[in-house]
Amino acid sequence: MNRSGFFYDLLSTLFERPNLARIKGDGRSITELCEALITSSSEGASHSMGQQILSQFSELTPEAEVEFFRYLTEQLDIDTEKLKALTAAYQADRSPDNLAGLLEAAEPRRQELLRRINRVPGATGELVSMRAHLLGLLRDNPSFGRTDLDFQHLFGSWFNRGFLVPRRIHWQSPANILEKIIKYEAVHAIDDWDDLRRRVEPADRRCYAFFHPAMPDDPLIFVEVALVKGVPGSVQAILAENREILDPASADTAVFYSISNCQAGLRGVSFGNSLIKQVVEDLQAEVKSITTFVTLSPIPGLCRWLSQSLADQPNADAVAQAVKVATDTGDLAGLGDQSQWLRRQAASYLINQKDRNGLPLDPVARFHLNNGAMVHDIHAGADLSANGVRQSCGLMVNYLYDLRKIGQFHEGFAENHTVAASRDVKTLADAAAANSNGRK
Amino acid sequence: MNRSGFFYDLLSTLFERPNLARIKGDGRSITELCEALITSSSEGASHSMGQQILSQFSELTPEAEVEFFRYLTEQLDIDTEKLKALTAAYQADRSPDNLAGLLEAAEPRRQELLRRINRVPGATGELVSMRAHLLGLLRDNPSFGRTDLDFQHLFGSWFNRGFLVPRRIHWQSPANILEKIIKYEAVHAIDDWDDLRRRVEPADRRCYAFFHPAMPDDPLIFVEVALVKGVPGSVQAILAENREILDPASADTAVFYSISNCQAGLRGVSFGNSLIKQVVEDLQAEVKSITTFVTLSPIPGLCRWLSQSLADQPNADAVAQAVKVATDTGDLAGLGDQSQWLRRQAASYLINQKDRNGLPLDPVARFHLNNGAMVHDIHAGADLSANGVRQSCGLMVNYLYDLRKIGQFHEGFAENHTVAASRDVKTLADAAAANSNGRK
Amino acid sequence: MNRSGFFYDLLSTLFERPNLARIKGDGRSITELCEALITSSSEGASHSMGQQILSQFSELTPEAEVEFFRYLTEQLDIDTEKLKALTAAYQADRSPDNLAGLLEAAEPRRQELLRRINRVPGATGELVSMRAHLLGLLRDNPSFGRTDLDFQHLFGSWFNRGFLVPRRIHWQSPANILEKIIKYEAVHAIDDWDDLRRRVEPADRRCYAFFHPAMPDDPLIFVEVALVKGVPGSVQAILAENREILDPASADTAVFYSISNCQAGLRGVSFGNSLIKQVVEDLQAEVKSITTFVTLSPIPGLCRWLSQSLADQPNADAVAQAVKVATDTGDLAGLGDQSQWLRRQAASYLINQKDRNGLPLDPVARFHLNNGAMVHDIHAGADLSANGVRQSCGLMVNYLYDLRKIGQFHEGFAENHTVAASRDVKTLADAAAANSNGRK
Amino acid sequence: MNRSGFFYDLLSTLFERPNLARIKGDGRSITELCEALITSSSEGASHSMGQQILSQFSELTPEAEVEFFRYLTEQLDIDTEKLKALTAAYQADRSPDNLAGLLEAAEPRRQELLRRINRVPGATGELVSMRAHLLGLLRDNPSFGRTDLDFQHLFGSWFNRGFLVPRRIHWQSPANILEKIIKYEAVHAIDDWDDLRRRVEPADRRCYAFFHPAMPDDPLIFVEVALVKGVPGSVQAILAENREILDPASADTAVFYSISNCQAGLRGVSFGNSLIKQVVEDLQAEVKSITTFVTLSPIPGLCRWLSQSLADQPNADAVAQAVKVATDTGDLAGLGDQSQWLRRQAASYLINQKDRNGLPLDPVARFHLNNGAMVHDIHAGADLSANGVRQSCGLMVNYLYDLRKIGQFHEGFAENHTVAASRDVKTLADAAAANSNGRK
Repeated sequence: MNRSGFFYDLLSTLFERPNLARIKGDGRSITELCEALITSSSEGASHSMGQQILSQFSELTPEAEVEFFRYLTEQLDIDTEKLKALTAAYQADRSPDNLAGLLEAAEPRRQELLRRINRVPGATGELVSMRAHLLGLLRDNPSFGRTDLDFQHLFGSWFNRGFLVPRRIHWQSPANILEKIIKYEAVHAIDDWDDLRRRVEPADRRCYAFFHPAMPDDPLIFVEVALVKGVPGSVQAILAENREILDPASADTAVFYSISNCQAGLRGVSFGNSLIKQVVEDLQAEVKSITTFVTLSPIPGLCRWLSQSLADQPNADAVAQAVKVATDTGDLAGLGDQSQWLRRQAASYLINQKDRNGLPLDPVARFHLNNGAMVHDIHAGADLSANGVRQSCGLMVNYLYDLRKIGQFHEGFAENHTVAASRDVKTLADAAAANSNGRK
Repeated sequence: MNRSGFFYDLLSTLFERPNLARIKGDGRSITELCEALITSSSEGASHSMGQQILSQFSELTPEAEVEFFRYLTEQLDIDTEKLKALTAAYQADRSPDNLAGLLEAAEPRRQELLRRINRVPGATGELVSMRAHLLGLLRDNPSFGRTDLDFQHLFGSWFNRGFLVPRRIHWQSPANILEKIIKYEAVHAIDDWDDLRRRVEPADRRCYAFFHPAMPDDPLIFVEVALVKGVPGSVQAILAENREILDPASADTAVFYSISNCQAGLRGVSFGNSLIKQVVEDLQAEVKSITTFVTLSPIPGLCRWLSQSLADQPNADAVAQAVKVATDTGDLAGLGDQSQWLRRQAASYLINQKDRNGLPLDPVARFHLNNGAMVHDIHAGADLSANGVRQSCGLMVNYLYDLRKIGQFHEGFAENHTVAASRDVKTLADAAAANSNGRK
Repeated sequence: MNRSGFFYDLLSTLFERPNLARIKGDGRSITELCEALITSSSEGASHSMGQQILSQFSELTPEAEVEFFRYLTEQLDIDTEKLKALTAAYQADRSPDNLAGLLEAAEPRRQELLRRINRVPGATGELVSMRAHLLGLLRDNPSFGRTDLDFQHLFGSWFNRGFLVPRRIHWQSPANILEKIIKYEAVHAIDDWDDLRRRVEPADRRCYAFFHPAMPDDPLIFVEVALVKGVPGSVQAILAENREILDPASADTAVFYSISNCQAGLRGVSFGNSLIKQVVEDLQAEVKSITTFVTLSPIPGLCRWLSQSLADQPNADAVAQAVKVATDTGDLAGLGDQSQWLRRQAASYLINQKDRNGLPLDPVARFHLNNGAMVHDIHAGADLSANGVRQSCGLMVNYLYDLRKIGQFHEGFAENHTVAASRDVKTLADAAAANSNGRK
Repeated sequence: MNRSGFFYDLLSTLFERPNLARIKGDGRSITELCEALITSSSEGASHSMGQQILSQFSELTPEAEVEFFRYLTEQLDIDTEKLKALTAAYQADRSPDNLAGLLEAAEPRRQELLRRINRVPGATGELVSMRAHLLGLLRDNPSFGRTDLDFQHLFGSWFNRGFLVPRRIHWQSPANILEKIIKYEAVHAIDDWDDLRRRVEPADRRCYAFFHPAMPDDPLIFVEVALVKGVPGSVQAILAENREILDPASADTAVFYSISNCQAGLRGVSFGNSLIKQVVEDLQAEVKSITTFVTLSPIPGLCRWLSQSLADQPNADAVAQAVKVATDTGDLAGLGDQSQWLRRQAASYLINQKDRNGLPLDPVARFHLNNGAMVHDIHAGADLSANGVRQSCGLMVNYLYDLRKIGQFHEGFAENHTVAASRDVKTLADAAAANSNGRK
């Protein structure tokens, strides 16, 4: 990565934020402002209207919020009659003017509204937050999905990979950024500033995030990495308070032990793949001794699947019962040394259990397999936190990113839903199947 | 040399540029790559295909370039039959799924192609350059205007005002930026580095530009400002080599004496208005003594109009003849003291001459009047450079930005095409009309 | 403060730090290395020796440390015989060569040693820390004061005001800097990151520090400021958790409520005066509404003086007894409403109690009065923290920085030891004197 | 335009510069101000006096300047009587107090004066400039050498290697820095901005400089480096306008082809050694393929020596005559193919010609040999610029920095004045000696 002091200057400017609390309204309602903004030709007026809309939105009651999204969905929709006419016109004469008319008619008017609001400095983050609200209302108001399509379309364009900025997070990072890492960590909760420091300060720990220049204070996604010797089988060792720090030059393996999406309002705008790829490239260049890139991931759907699967068998044996107790109570001790049995079940779950699209049931598995990783190993008792036991029966899995095979594995998965797995894991899955068959 | 610092990190990343010269092709043609990219699901492969497309494009022959744009225009267009069907479906049932189908069908496939190319770091600038090529082919290939609509649509979204970064240019700015200011200056050419320094280093000179984070080395538009006492009537004094430097605290007027758009490929994506507004705000905050904001602008259409207008009069008098000679030869001396006559003609031209849409003939006048400025004063012999004489008969005009009236003037212009002008300028225009009438 | 992105680059380089833990010795003892370093002519060898000396020093036992400083003090001292001869030679012939010889002989050799150690990147902070160790040994080894003179001399040169960098600390500051603010706060302890945030994030709170470019991670001194309406009489209100945040534009007063020196090793190298001056200038430029600059300071010597003073009076009355109890137990409640009596005593203490040099007994008073401030007001019950009650009987004092009178007050204090005080405070002190007289 | 970022803040402060032109005097003369400043206890007053002194100094007539330095030299000198007494006192009782008295008396008062002036922001550069003036007066006023000793002492402390900041200069560097590179280049003049660009922009060219944080706009020393294949024998190829740019990964050799000290006022405060060492380390880390570090240096004393040496021989042969003509006229063509003879003479000059201290006559040779380099090769016709021919008879020399032998070579040179040279160069020198002997 090249460098220059100049652009420091450049980015610092982006810090301007509208102080929405101070925006005084001019008496118009939020929908009146929207109507006016869509048709305004004055930049000055547009700016003020955009600010007022964001300010009013932030203070809407839940009911008024629903009303607002209903307005966007129904009043600012496509005029299908007009669109039909203009499509026919363009079919008859494929002139640029006819296409211009068609394209304008084919776009819900709310898209232009959102683009105009986004001209206000700092508005991008506010619009991401607006969509988070919208997503929360979708279940009860399925028609709002129409408005959500426009958010998705715009965010896909604005948060294009080419506009994202990868950035390392460390103990010299600004406190206002670090507190967001604490807040957004979704896999292994960060207890406090000391816990955070253990994850970003030592020489054998890394944290990387993607930022967007219009939201420089707010990470979009981040990944936590441990540099270790050998592929680890438990997250406890990685998070331990008093562990010995490793000289990075002695490490041979980089472990991605946590990946967190930060912005609920960006659901479906995927960055994880790109971030992992970027980090792998950076680490390869920086720490020559590292040759293995692997995750240490939860299996968040395992317990639920196991419970259901065992529940279906009237003659569930002792092990099954134990698992049920263990996952019900969160007490893994009851499992005794049945860990090998659990590993087999997990292998089978990851490799053989598919959803109606033929893809793996487990969402984390889908993510990494689609990135071109393979299921490398499965460990029992690897995450004994409350969450780890409840969701994953304490198991964790290593997905291996073998740079020479990523392309091939991705293609196999994308085209044929082939789940790449190591010989060991396949053997485990086969044993589970044999067992299961044997039992019948 | 070690490095650190958070924002350093952030921006330095933006420097990554694809070294297109080094991209090796994989044997596929540019259109094959486009087809593959639109349908690819692998990020790694997409990245490589995007780079190859940009690399191949940069080496196309003129004929092949036309072929490529023809491909984009005709092969990646909308399927109108499908669009009609999906519009009907949505009309029948306004479900989100139906809308999703409609929106996808209503978007020419080349839009998705361009978005995917843009994922390559540094691609944004390359796509701006691609459109510059496209614009050059429009006259001979009017149908390419269909493809241009998609560029416009995407650029309007990507170069949204909220994503632009205002930045002052000074003598401490990086040389690679400054050389672009020299290159892009479109109004009063910058001869060399010494001339540049005279415009950006003295305490009473300013230069501001807009940048986009994905093109950090390349300004989008910039404006040059002189801080002076009193509204100036000639650009020579402003550009003089040995003038005395004014203490900014003694200045009462900021003169915008040059505004240059830098990117031909961003034609129609307007920033000038926003930049002027930003600079006015910044200067007001920084230099309290400044109360007047005014341009010193060319009247680029004046000479052509004058020649045509006089040519129509068989009995054109001596003055007319002199102008014709002067503008034909570029020698203003022949005009003698007819400058008052010229000022009247210019006032009349700016205020009364309209295009078929009822807007002023002069493009610079349209720009400032639409921003809310008024025609404040007109000066003869104000730009004696070759260009100034040839286009503007040596005249220049001050457009005044009176912050209290900008909104009102903009509205009057936008709604009724009212040209705001000072009493003096109106008097000049009236005199021209009287003369003209009297002559008949 | 002007700005440029370039020097960001510049400073970031300074982050290079020697990893002393990794420096391997070459078998020589620390004193052997010192001898070799003083005479070495090779930069490469010097660098290595400097690192080894710092590394070995950091691992010395307490006894070996004393030996090391004894070595510096006695073995690297001035050769007085030689100095006498060279002084005579210079007296006889004031040639540059003779002066050069004299100057070299007049400088203890340890000065050159310390300068050479300081060539190692990052050594400056290590040397500051080395002096902190030395200061801790002075009481038991008064002769080490000779070595301390050389540290003082060098630090006075290296930490010259012209080399110091003022810098605002806020919630966007790097966490590694912020944790040092927590650690170094010497007046009103910062409990945790939330407490810190309350002091640096709100719009009406400021924190400024001085840094040295060779120690960019470590503040030298910092001051905490509250922007308020009216001069405050208690620190509790300023530090309250749930107070309302004030719009800075509504503030009329800046309160310096805490000043902390960070580096024990820089004792006697004073920065406080410069920092206050710098902050006053910056705040005046930034927040136009602020017209009053005032401290809210402890009176750290008050309780001790009061106890001693009352102890001398065999017939100490009830109040005196109450104070004794209160300060012994730290329970102020016992004082009842005797606060007016306490204010009088404090006024008298600040204005009339002098040390043997004729300067005020109270160290904080000496500092601010020497800066040109005046004693403005005294408040009882103003700091009810354990520390505040134990040292200052819960009282606090406002020193007022009246910019028009700073020069005059400083001179009066520096030349005649005149204590500038408001009429109110003088009245309090007079009342205390009258009381005291009356009691006799 | 808002701004933020920690280090931005940090460094931007260093930009504060006194605008000396605007400093108004208070009626006191420069020497009165100096007396007042030495004794002042008020920081505010000191600041103002320091500014006035610098401002007045910058406007002194040549005569007044001499007077000023005479004042510094004679009025602010050491009181030798006092020093003798205090030395005796310390000899009798080595107490810290006695040492403090002695140290104060042993320091010319002008040192404290200069330290106090240096508290003014931006004063460091002014003081460096002041010493440059002083150096220009030394020949006519040798006693001023006493004052120069104090400048040297202070600058040695302030410009300690540990405070210097290495920084790469490239085409993204600020224009105000780059123009100083043009101005300060002392070996191969830089004609204009295009010439500069050829030296800092291409991937196979580097430029590095040392800066001091208190003079962030002004480089102290810089070196220009070319990355090439094989050790080059001529500077023309390196500076050629239309040469082909080399991929750095294909380079095996780094050539230091120009080293320039920038500040006349820092004469004798050496940085060159450190800068070369720093650049070698950085290049080794960055461009793995580079294994050879070599200079391409002038032999500035060669022509003069050769002329004198041949002039002593009454029977100087044709070659000698030709050289005389060539160096007198600057026309090398007359030399014909006598280049081998010249190389022998140069080898002999570099290896065998010593000054009265037993060190090589040639200053550039002294510099590199003392750094631990060896004489590697000698090239005729290697610098055909006017300067190159006049001083070095067109010859250039490679000094090789072999990292494994630097320590050993430096020691041999420092202790025994041994000139390390390659077998080839030694053979050339031997041949010169044989020739010379044979001729007798």
